[in-house]
Amino acid sequence: MKIPKEVVAALKKEKVFLIAAHINPDGDALGSCLALSSALESAGKEVYVYNKDSVPAFYRFLPGYKTVGSSLKKAIAKDPVLILLDCNSPDRAALERYSFRKSIVIDHHETENDFGDIRWVVPAAAATGLMVFYLIKAIGIAFTGDIARNLYTAIAVDTGTFRYSNTSPEVLKASAELIEAGADPAFIAECLYERWEKTRFDLLVMTLNNLEIKNGVAVMHITKDMFDKTGTTSEDTENFSNLPRAIKSVKISALFRDIGDGFWKASLRSKGNVNVAKIAELFGGGGHKNAAGFKISGGLKSAKEKLLRAAEKTSRDR
Amino acid sequence: MKIPKEVVAALKKEKVFLIAAHINPDGDALGSCLALSSALESAGKEVYVYNKDSVPAFYRFLPGYKTVGSSLKKAIAKDPVLILLDCNSPDRAALERYSFRKSIVIDHHETENDFGDIRWVVPAAAATGLMVFYLIKAIGIAFTGDIARNLYTAIAVDTGTFRYSNTSPEVLKASAELIEAGADPAFIAECLYERWEKTRFDLLVMTLNNLEIKNGVAVMHITKDMFDKTGTTSEDTENFSNLPRAIKSVKISALFRDIGDGFWKASLRSKGNVNVAKIAELFGGGGHKNAAGFKISGGLKSAKEKLLRAAEKTSRDR
Repeated sequence: MKIPKEVVAALKKEKVFLIAAHINPDGDALGSCLALSSALESAGKEVYVYNKDSVPAFYRFLPGYKTVGSSLKKAIAKDPVLILLDCNSPDRAALERYSFRKSIVIDHHETENDFGDIRWVVPAAAATGLMVFYLIKAIGIAFTGDIARNLYTAIAVDTGTFRYSNTSPEVLKASAELIEAGADPAFIAECLYERWEKTRFDLLVMTLNNLEIKNGVAVMHITKDMFDKTGTTSEDTENFSNLPRAIKSVKISALFRDIGDGFWKASLRSKGNVNVAKIAELFGGGGHKNAAGFKISGGLKSAKEKLLRAAEKTSRDR
Repeated sequence: MKIPKEVVAALKKEKVFLIAAHINPDGDALGSCLALSSALESAGKEVYVYNKDSVPAFYRFLPGYKTVGSSLKKAIAKDPVLILLDCNSPDRAALERYSFRKSIVIDHHETENDFGDIRWVVPAAAATGLMVFYLIKAIGIAFTGDIARNLYTAIAVDTGTFRYSNTSPEVLKASAELIEAGADPAFIAECLYERWEKTRFDLLVMTLNNLEIKNGVAVMHITKDMFDKTGTTSEDTENFSNLPRAIKSVKISALFRDIGDGFWKASLRSKGNVNVAKIAELFGGGGHKNAAGFKISGGLKSAKEKLLRAAEKTSRDR
């Protein structure tokens, strides 16, 4: 991967940095921020890591997670250089009210926006963590065990621990190097996949019980009553919509969850070439080809029927 | 990985081979056999692949799977050299009634048995497929796309697609090379994890509905009635016992399934350092530290109680 010289030069020259990622941070956002922060600090820099949202409980095995988010005011007072990671505009990081004397964008999301004095945007990169991996090497800093765990987690999360189509030779080679530097694949997998609260598992089983499949579309729902009975919240539903993909005949999997005020949030997942972003757009939502979502008001039954009709329509258009 | 010179020399010198793996073959057994067979054939050898059992439906994406098993008589008539893969004694491959003028064992399972004129047994290897990977390189044969898919699948299955503690730097580097040679990680993951029959999914949901957790031990069961209602068999229960491991408080997960004649088969899975082989041994069963099993007769309720008492006892002994 080719790294723009200006990025390396700026990281070497500047003294104070504010590193920020998108709100609702995932493993790639958090791991990338914490790894780069740790690397720059070891080079004697003053570094602040900001996120508007708190670190989700299941990411609190990432070394340095406690440094996230606390000190925006203090950071701003130091006139830092902004490094935006895993997103490419200040509003995605809830920083639109601030201005910075210099800003660097490092991201792997497609974008039409041109924010940033220095921009390094590589949509083909499997994870922002992979870009940060090469960047840390380029500035000549050795991977510590902490940096390795953060970067391995970032890459693991964005490749579905090496099951998605972005699992390239370079992804595996970089991950091999991170294990050599101290990352523990089994520990990280356990942290990511085997630390559910029992209440979350109960909600999952309850949800699977209402699964229906029509014309290759799997549909499930979670009512407010189900959240109440299990003592869970929307946060606990992450990845639920993926599970019916296990079934051979399922091309699209949809989960409707009650988000209050008469609205349902639909999370769509698809296999292979089936594009659920197009379906979500019909309802004013959006996303990627294999993962998208939208909001819809009204009754559950009618919401499900509308989705099934839309799926049928886009399938005819294919 | 150091390969014994005799293995390479024998593969180069001999002309006719019978390659066999253990009964109830898994992805590592099948992928290893098919990859080595394909490599030897490309070097002009006559190769037969034998397994007593048929290739499970979900492994029928492995190139060459149709060559497995058909022609034992024909092979024996050619006086072949036996290559045992992913096991280390003829009875594990249902070949104990035959004798061979020369036999080669290539395996990564611990063993006290000494069958084989040439033995290459490496318990530290993550998969037999990884050993075959190095072997094919050592005999100087290029990886075709077919060989790459077979070996990548072998390694993926035995490392839980890179989630188990045997996921080493060399596992990832070899897998990277196999992607470069044509293996498709997303396609292989889809074949392994997303081609369930709906009936199997129904059985899973029914099984999860009877999950109980006591003192960190998750217990589920499948009755004959549940198999009948969903139209499934024991084969469909693979990996079910793993799922409750997702719950943080669960250290041991047990699945009891009705195997007829008044017997239950218990499949045990554990996390980290919890040794379920020791529990299984108390009931005359066995296995590995994190995956073991045993048979028990009598009522389901009493079988579950006996397991819970045994788990408590071994936990006190720890």
